[in-house]
Amino acid sequence: MPAYNPPLQDMRFALRQVLEFDKHYASLPGAEDATPDVVDAILEEGAKFARDVLSPLNAVGDTQGCTLKDGEVTTPDGFREAYQQYVDGGWPSMTQPVAQGGQGLPESLGTVLSEMNGTANWSWAMYPGLSHGAMNTLAAHGTEQQQENYLSKLVSGEWTGTMCLTESHCGTDLGLLKTRAEPNDDGSYAITGQKIFISAGEHDMADNIVHIVLARLAGAPEGTRGISLFIVPKFSLTDDGNMGVRNSVSCGSLEHKMGIHGNATCVLNFDGAKGFLIGPPNRGLNCMFTFMNTARIGTAVQGLAHAELAFQGSLAYARDRLQMRSLSGAAAPDKPADPIIVHPDVRRMLLTQKALAEGGRMFLYRCGMLVDLAHQGADEQTRAAAEQELALLTPIAKAFLTETGFEAANLGMQVFGGHGYIKEWGMEQNVRDARISMIYEGTTGVQAIDLLGRKVLGSQGALLKAYTRQIHKFCKAHGDEPELHRYIRPLAKLNVEWGALTQRIGMAALQDKEEAGAASVDYLMYSGYIVMAYFWAQAAVAAERQLEAGEGDAVFLRAKLFTARFYMERLLPRTSTLAVTMLSGADNLMDLDEAHFAI
Amino acid sequence: MPAYNPPLQDMRFALRQVLEFDKHYASLPGAEDATPDVVDAILEEGAKFARDVLSPLNAVGDTQGCTLKDGEVTTPDGFREAYQQYVDGGWPSMTQPVAQGGQGLPESLGTVLSEMNGTANWSWAMYPGLSHGAMNTLAAHGTEQQQENYLSKLVSGEWTGTMCLTESHCGTDLGLLKTRAEPNDDGSYAITGQKIFISAGEHDMADNIVHIVLARLAGAPEGTRGISLFIVPKFSLTDDGNMGVRNSVSCGSLEHKMGIHGNATCVLNFDGAKGFLIGPPNRGLNCMFTFMNTARIGTAVQGLAHAELAFQGSLAYARDRLQMRSLSGAAAPDKPADPIIVHPDVRRMLLTQKALAEGGRMFLYRCGMLVDLAHQGADEQTRAAAEQELALLTPIAKAFLTETGFEAANLGMQVFGGHGYIKEWGMEQNVRDARISMIYEGTTGVQAIDLLGRKVLGSQGALLKAYTRQIHKFCKAHGDEPELHRYIRPLAKLNVEWGALTQRIGMAALQDKEEAGAASVDYLMYSGYIVMAYFWAQAAVAAERQLEAGEGDAVFLRAKLFTARFYMERLLPRTSTLAVTMLSGADNLMDLDEAHFAI
Repeated sequence: MPAYNPPLQDMRFALRQVLEFDKHYASLPGAEDATPDVVDAILEEGAKFARDVLSPLNAVGDTQGCTLKDGEVTTPDGFREAYQQYVDGGWPSMTQPVAQGGQGLPESLGTVLSEMNGTANWSWAMYPGLSHGAMNTLAAHGTEQQQENYLSKLVSGEWTGTMCLTESHCGTDLGLLKTRAEPNDDGSYAITGQKIFISAGEHDMADNIVHIVLARLAGAPEGTRGISLFIVPKFSLTDDGNMGVRNSVSCGSLEHKMGIHGNATCVLNFDGAKGFLIGPPNRGLNCMFTFMNTARIGTAVQGLAHAELAFQGSLAYARDRLQMRSLSGAAAPDKPADPIIVHPDVRRMLLTQKALAEGGRMFLYRCGMLVDLAHQGADEQTRAAAEQELALLTPIAKAFLTETGFEAANLGMQVFGGHGYIKEWGMEQNVRDARISMIYEGTTGVQAIDLLGRKVLGSQGALLKAYTRQIHKFCKAHGDEPELHRYIRPLAKLNVEWGALTQRIGMAALQDKEEAGAASVDYLMYSGYIVMAYFWAQAAVAAERQLEAGEGDAVFLRAKLFTARFYMERLLPRTSTLAVTMLSGADNLMDLDEAHFAI
Repeated sequence: MPAYNPPLQDMRFALRQVLEFDKHYASLPGAEDATPDVVDAILEEGAKFARDVLSPLNAVGDTQGCTLKDGEVTTPDGFREAYQQYVDGGWPSMTQPVAQGGQGLPESLGTVLSEMNGTANWSWAMYPGLSHGAMNTLAAHGTEQQQENYLSKLVSGEWTGTMCLTESHCGTDLGLLKTRAEPNDDGSYAITGQKIFISAGEHDMADNIVHIVLARLAGAPEGTRGISLFIVPKFSLTDDGNMGVRNSVSCGSLEHKMGIHGNATCVLNFDGAKGFLIGPPNRGLNCMFTFMNTARIGTAVQGLAHAELAFQGSLAYARDRLQMRSLSGAAAPDKPADPIIVHPDVRRMLLTQKALAEGGRMFLYRCGMLVDLAHQGADEQTRAAAEQELALLTPIAKAFLTETGFEAANLGMQVFGGHGYIKEWGMEQNVRDARISMIYEGTTGVQAIDLLGRKVLGSQGALLKAYTRQIHKFCKAHGDEPELHRYIRPLAKLNVEWGALTQRIGMAALQDKEEAGAASVDYLMYSGYIVMAYFWAQAAVAAERQLEAGEGDAVFLRAKLFTARFYMERLLPRTSTLAVTMLSGADNLMDLDEAHFAI
């Protein structure tokens, strides 16, 4: 596996120069502690942990996987110890509320940390990632007692959490779920059913596991309006809040998966397990949806993670591997052949990975900023605007960054030639690990319908208009600077086209509902390329500004401008195909009888 | 693993209606035995073997893999027995010359058979596939004695063959290879060196293995002009041609790979192994290049194989899996949800796979026909024309069909949602197995340089012109039929653009050699979409003709027209992006110092 070295210079450039996080934190109520010095120290410490502790365990996790014996799951060598170090370092509590024992730092800092942990070792990072979701759910919907009992232990990291949604017959369509909850005499519920694909569902890294479970109360309405949310701890608590008897929830089996072997993906059997209702009856899905955005951004991080790891691995190989001569004449005449980085197509593969990783980084940090603002913004207007932009960007971030992350992972492997296919190099693990990201937390198709149907058309275009207006202002502000033309002009042109195409799809969808579904994935990818172009244009502006002022590292800044140009000239033109195919109509999909797909 | 059911109706349509193979065989010298009845019988028998014998072993091969113990490799359960059945059925000899004990049937029939075997079980199909390469090499360059000793045993299938090219420091750049050959007193050579990535390099399926090995004679020139070709049998032969003592070639280890686990990928150590020169000294690479086209078409088959298997697996799942309701209202109101094939985006994924598989099938069969004509065409002009068209199409077939095959494999997996990531469904195996196809036998980047540099620009455009002229004639012949407009017009337009873009790249490459490399992969993919459009247009013409004549299966033919339309409207527009990016210039790749890719 390529060793991961957190790209701190690029991370700081994205945070400080492009997105002005120093200003953001200075003006964010409750973020007083997130001073530049503190942020810097956290980045440095987080980088050390990711690089020195987690990265070396990445290949171990893949090779060993998790094992189930007598109901107990053993995680790969070193995972448990790394988790203990993580807890000892106070990382689980970083962005949690002070009232629950957290450090109260902004959520966006957690995104940056999860980028580093996830790039170093995605399988490992999923364990605390799941806890994070459980913590958010309990913080928002748990009673004071529930928070005292469970949340505090999650915040300290002593226990971990899960999200138990999927059943074998329903993933996307949760309205079909069958797990049922029968009231006990003591106010608790007996939960019975089988959940599948439960990440971190059983393991040996923490003493107790807090399962957040969707189930159906007896007599509840059918479909999504009859689903409630429960806490089901692996060990029930005694009256004084300590760990008591083992609850009747057990791991029936571990899934054998293509990748992320280090994470335990469990079938969980609930046999009248003792559970506690969170939030109002039959409103479970609403409680969950509150955090869908956060969870989806968490998965979007995975796209960036695999792109960055692919880039680091393949860049090192391309500098080292000698094969053929440069078409322009020998670049390393003293060696038997030139390093393959001299070849234009190898550079195309490297730069694609680089542009997607660095572009994805800015995109994600902006999402983190919006989460901060949506939760803690100074006034209602700020919070609402952030909430709306986040609603628009979340499905794009999730689907676009994971799709392009998978592309980057494959390019990283391709640079290695035959060696890329061999396990010991780790590049194929990166591809296998990346592949799940386009599926879980809502497939690309589900995100696309969320974006086009719910967010864009569902708001009568309001969410998109607010965003294209923002881009328009940005382009106007910088459109007169000739050295910026190559970055601003393609963006400005597509920004106008984006609105126009959306209107055409909206009109078509009014006539035929299938038109939205038929356009959706192409529309999402098209939108993704424009959003990423907006970030690359901002990066170019920031780099030019620093260069003009004689500030910063000129070599770094010129490489940044070069990559922005590469993005505009080599990746952004993908919009031209998508603009055509998304408008090609639903008929070329729907006018074939299901029975005639294969004869 | 999805069960594979050979799509005989579609195969026959491609062979008979689109490509007129009955006529082709009737006029091909030496193909007198390939009557329609014989071809039909072979298709039926081949389909049975692929479906009933090989397909059930596909998952077994992945799960068990190959094992090495005391120098002996054990293949997965059932592989050996299946190979024995294959030999008993006379399949290895089908397309081999009668003089060597073969049946003398046309090479193109072998392509169809390898499609079926390869789709059923690619890892297994590689064993006879490698033998095929060795047979071709011996038939063309071996002495009479060598053919008697080795070729006859390969033709009968008693022994298998390998191609030993790659060493750890060179795959693409064979000029760097170090394996050396020292003359023995008896006219043989002592071969010493290490080869890696040798598919089928050691196994238990046949008594002996005939390695075809590239090595360097003592005192040979450096680089590619100092490489010779040798036969190195696993067991040396006694004077009467029987198997004698074990030769000093041994399997040092098996590679642990992402996929194709059922095939033994060996490190082979040659320790003064006894070998025999094939062809003239120092002309080894030329001897190999004779068969590069055939080997590359063999790998192109793999792209089709994974696309077809993905399509069959995901279509069955999409008809069965119930999730959500159709946007147009419940399609299966008696069920808890609709089968997911009602959703437009699922249909988009299915139709993409279908269009790529059926389009790839026609493309490959045409390549098979060209191999027939190049080898056995009635006159010199026919042979030369076929040779030239094949030279142009081969790198496109290899790279384009494997790239799109991998896309299709991923879409097939995506249709399964979370279940696609789980091993038991087999869809992720299909992705892992597919991934190597873009790498071995020359990566996509290598094919792209071969196409643009060697074939297109290297012939001053002659090869391309001959092909675009063919398409032009076809479009002209059918351009007046209004019901064909939607298939012919986009093709005709792009056919003109193809020539124009090629000229622009050629001009740019005259100024700067890097321009060709910078454009190459985009150029290849662009060319691939046009070539496939040509086949889809031919399929549409054939289907319309049959429908008008009231012949054939109208349901099948209308589905064919629908898929042709889907291809033209949803896949062919990808050319519009590629046309832009291929012309975006080498500067956006080359103007960044190698040291500045990451700071």
